[in-house]
Amino acid sequence: MDNHGNFTEIAEQLIATGRFIDSKAWVPATSGNFSARLQDGSIAITVSGAHKGRLKIEDIMVVDSFGCSFDNRRPSAETLLHTALYRRYFDVQAILHPHPLNATLISKLFEGRIVLEGYELLKAFSGIETHESQLVIPVFANNQNIAELASVIDEYLDTHDECRAYLIAGHGIYVWAESVPVCLRHLEALDFLFECELRLLHGVAKR
Amino acid sequence: MDNHGNFTEIAEQLIATGRFIDSKAWVPATSGNFSARLQDGSIAITVSGAHKGRLKIEDIMVVDSFGCSFDNRRPSAETLLHTALYRRYFDVQAILHPHPLNATLISKLFEGRIVLEGYELLKAFSGIETHESQLVIPVFANNQNIAELASVIDEYLDTHDECRAYLIAGHGIYVWAESVPVCLRHLEALDFLFECELRLLHGVAKR
Amino acid sequence: MDNHGNFTEIAEQLIATGRFIDSKAWVPATSGNFSARLQDGSIAITVSGAHKGRLKIEDIMVVDSFGCSFDNRRPSAETLLHTALYRRYFDVQAILHPHPLNATLISKLFEGRIVLEGYELLKAFSGIETHESQLVIPVFANNQNIAELASVIDEYLDTHDECRAYLIAGHGIYVWAESVPVCLRHLEALDFLFECELRLLHGVAKR
Amino acid sequence: MDNHGNFTEIAEQLIATGRFIDSKAWVPATSGNFSARLQDGSIAITVSGAHKGRLKIEDIMVVDSFGCSFDNRRPSAETLLHTALYRRYFDVQAILHPHPLNATLISKLFEGRIVLEGYELLKAFSGIETHESQLVIPVFANNQNIAELASVIDEYLDTHDECRAYLIAGHGIYVWAESVPVCLRHLEALDFLFECELRLLHGVAKR
Repeated sequence: MDNHGNFTEIAEQLIATGRFIDSKAWVPATSGNFSARLQDGSIAITVSGAHKGRLKIEDIMVVDSFGCSFDNRRPSAETLLHTALYRRYFDVQAILHPHPLNATLISKLFEGRIVLEGYELLKAFSGIETHESQLVIPVFANNQNIAELASVIDEYLDTHDECRAYLIAGHGIYVWAESVPVCLRHLEALDFLFECELRLLHGVAKR
Repeated sequence: MDNHGNFTEIAEQLIATGRFIDSKAWVPATSGNFSARLQDGSIAITVSGAHKGRLKIEDIMVVDSFGCSFDNRRPSAETLLHTALYRRYFDVQAILHPHPLNATLISKLFEGRIVLEGYELLKAFSGIETHESQLVIPVFANNQNIAELASVIDEYLDTHDECRAYLIAGHGIYVWAESVPVCLRHLEALDFLFECELRLLHGVAKR
Repeated sequence: MDNHGNFTEIAEQLIATGRFIDSKAWVPATSGNFSARLQDGSIAITVSGAHKGRLKIEDIMVVDSFGCSFDNRRPSAETLLHTALYRRYFDVQAILHPHPLNATLISKLFEGRIVLEGYELLKAFSGIETHESQLVIPVFANNQNIAELASVIDEYLDTHDECRAYLIAGHGIYVWAESVPVCLRHLEALDFLFECELRLLHGVAKR
Repeated sequence: MDNHGNFTEIAEQLIATGRFIDSKAWVPATSGNFSARLQDGSIAITVSGAHKGRLKIEDIMVVDSFGCSFDNRRPSAETLLHTALYRRYFDVQAILHPHPLNATLISKLFEGRIVLEGYELLKAFSGIETHESQLVIPVFANNQNIAELASVIDEYLDTHDECRAYLIAGHGIYVWAESVPVCLRHLEALDFLFECELRLLHGVAKR
């Protein structure tokens, strides 16, 4: 597959990332999918149905920027959500879509969006320099019609330049960044901040 | 024991499954039991009293489809709940019965049944294609008289074809499927969904 | 030390038990102590100040049944709570005293005692055959004067034959049994049951 | 770097401590920083941006007691909070600053300070002999201007001799002690006590 340039290197990054993400229980059953942009502009993405904590190199396929497969395998329907992000943001190199418990709960409890502010850990995001920043994560309704879902997301992103990640209700999170490790750092920070918000929902009564 | 066909292979699957399940703390103390159907129609099942995270091949015995032992060992009383499921569903090949905390709590907090809906992870179940599905898990009262308990369960299953798993109050969960790995995937998905439901019980007040 | 009979074997059991207990985070900092009766009637017990998840054989000392050291080392003050149990119950061979979070919380939230009932996992206790049993765990006020504390405990145990474990408020749990592995099984079951009770405190409102 | 005396030994202690702290998920993303005093009075401290669970020896730099680097690398801004503590307390040899979830939540839920009392585990702190002690942990407002933050902290410490640790709201905890292992023991005890306090916030209603 190395006619795409750095497939092997990127695939190994995705495999290692999957092991870490699974160690956090963020991809229960065979949920989630991960991708990264290759040197020739095509996209390496996990195949549907594989366990994301035990990925093998053959569990990662290559599609073009519209989600068409370069080999015989049919990509998962959600591949289109990945390619839409790569087409929109030229500097995005990696996208992680796990199903963490905290993200799922946030997506059920917060309607429309969650605003994260006042946390030092916001500085884990590239370009955020102070805890006084606001990070807004939109929550979209789930939809098995991926084209419709993609269109709702596109409309939002058209008018929200600063968006770093989105939630799909009862489903999971999409987060993107300029490299696989940075994307994972953002995911790790978001999970921490989501857990804070969830636990603070119950603790505001007493001091 | 390989006069039953694939005993060794199936036993190794149950042992590995036990290690995974124990790593999630779903079989505290020596609780739970696991089984799988063998090629000759007999049932491999864990013996009573063994720690399910540290199973050895001699901790797995073989019974016929009515729970009669093929060797000297007396099977656990709950073996009858396993064999009843194998007799009812010809395509069921594996049954897992752990005691996870989340299942135990759900079984104490929800009377009669819990309905899971609106989760993408419902698609982890074979045959479920959309988060708009409903998965109904019945909750039965616990009973040390296994024959009585089996009869209550049978009566329910006679009229609920789509049932995938059941809870016994204050006790644990039974889940069955067409293979050991698929059964484990269903269990992993159910634990995630149960934890969501438990945490949502406390978080509905504020958004 | 093997003039006491089976010191080496028992010490290795305590070391392995400590590793398991630490993996559950039940002995934060250097808290807790563990003991077992040796063949000659003396008691092997962990020294004060050692980390219970990284015990070495020299972290286990031997005392007589009144807590007097057989070597130069001064035993921890709480050794007297262990020896009192060994003198009272001739069939007790092992005592575990960790500081699990759940036990600490239960000891703060329940005054005087907690009653566990309706759980299948009660059957993890030797001699309990049905979930319809009641297991009563008393909670004693903490006291740095161990002689006073021992006297309060003795008074309770004089009139409660069936007692299997006790809590000290804000402190931890003592559990005893006929062997180290059985004692650990009881501890594992109690932690599970305590966590159930804690989470049910918050979940009774909605079904 | 061993012209500072014991750099290699201390750096290895910080690396091992980072692995333990990361195993507890107390340094999400690349948050936190750790330091220790060297034999010549200079300070070994983790560089900014490194993952604290996977530190290498080159991720630890040396500064003087006013935070000036001995090599080309620019220390993190928060280095000044470390050096202020080393200048104030001559017997402090180690400082740990992770971002644990529990500390972050406590810092959001308790205004000004949290008082810990009635816990046996308070005895994990050097010099505390009874659960009847009070341990007061102040909570300071977060501030990206480290000089201002340091000045607020200094003012507090001038009048509170017995202070063992402080929280910065939405940020994390600073804890200091006479050695790296003792500092880690204090951190482990504080995390346990913070989790107790958080869970007791929700459990006081029923017994």
